[in-house]
Amino acid sequence: MKDHNPSLEAILNFIVEVEKLKGVLRKTRPVGLERYENSAEHSWHVCLSALVLRDYANEPIDIDKVIRMLLIHDLGEIDAGDQIVYAAVSAQRHEQERAGIQRVLDNLPEDMAGEFLSLWDEFEAGESPESLYARAIDRLPPLLHNLHGGGHSWKENGISREQVLNLNSRIGLGSRSLWESMRRKLDQAAEEDLL
Amino acid sequence: MKDHNPSLEAILNFIVEVEKLKGVLRKTRPVGLERYENSAEHSWHVCLSALVLRDYANEPIDIDKVIRMLLIHDLGEIDAGDQIVYAAVSAQRHEQERAGIQRVLDNLPEDMAGEFLSLWDEFEAGESPESLYARAIDRLPPLLHNLHGGGHSWKENGISREQVLNLNSRIGLGSRSLWESMRRKLDQAAEEDLL
Repeated sequence: MKDHNPSLEAILNFIVEVEKLKGVLRKTRPVGLERYENSAEHSWHVCLSALVLRDYANEPIDIDKVIRMLLIHDLGEIDAGDQIVYAAVSAQRHEQERAGIQRVLDNLPEDMAGEFLSLWDEFEAGESPESLYARAIDRLPPLLHNLHGGGHSWKENGISREQVLNLNSRIGLGSRSLWESMRRKLDQAAEEDLL
Repeated sequence: MKDHNPSLEAILNFIVEVEKLKGVLRKTRPVGLERYENSAEHSWHVCLSALVLRDYANEPIDIDKVIRMLLIHDLGEIDAGDQIVYAAVSAQRHEQERAGIQRVLDNLPEDMAGEFLSLWDEFEAGESPESLYARAIDRLPPLLHNLHGGGHSWKENGISREQVLNLNSRIGLGSRSLWESMRRKLDQAAEEDLL
């Protein structure tokens, strides 16, 4: 048996630390479930959604980079908590989340921590094809949860039809076809007074 | 606005259908939480764990392939449910899960469904470097949950020290250093009567 391996031990600490994301609650309920979604299962859902929708990105993308981005995109919430997508995004909030992910990444070897922080910064900036696509996918599940769940989160949080349409139109920056499809569903939901 | 896009609609149905994995409960509790873990958040956790432990695989691996494998590895449980890792693995159980994932994949374009079923088969066979590593990582969180949670799942399910050591020694097939580290932790837990 080899001697104690400090790098490996630190990585195992990271693996235990990120478990806390399973306890961070979001604002929508998964389809068919009564409870609120947590940010860990959401992260899985958007990774898989990105993978199966890869052919619908506006620009050529490195899908593996998108998946890595989405695997870590919410780690800052362990310290900062989840915030509804309709809330104003402040510089302060961004810095809270960035400090949060930095604290968690501190357990990892320096080069790996740097790699993940760069990915997170790229995601947050929303300028590269990968981040535009990843951010589009990140917006999808809450819409589906509302559309299949009586618009519960829109109602609970007093979100208007205009807010839903305005904010989510950014999905089109990553995938025009996805936004066209979701826009149709939202228009239909509006006709049914769901929003 | 383009016409209705049937392929995209089918993929969106898949994205809603796989939500059900969030309702499949496993046999351990995440560190710090009272409730049982679900298979969706577990899937995220093993994807991220595989990514950060990539340098500890026994053989060179395509880590992006490993992550895709782990993203979909539990989809068969939507129909078949979760089974504790210590249960006897029967051919019948394997076929139940395979039929389950096939049903879910049926929503996807044929080539994509085939790609994912191949990945699942490769994971289940446990012969390629990627599947050996992915299967090693898949065994890690339940050990950490028990080690950080009073051995709750070992006690609840009457799992002996020998069973834990024998079954999990297969972690070494994917990562010898990871198994050495976990073996040390398990020996220490045994000294403390945790198992």
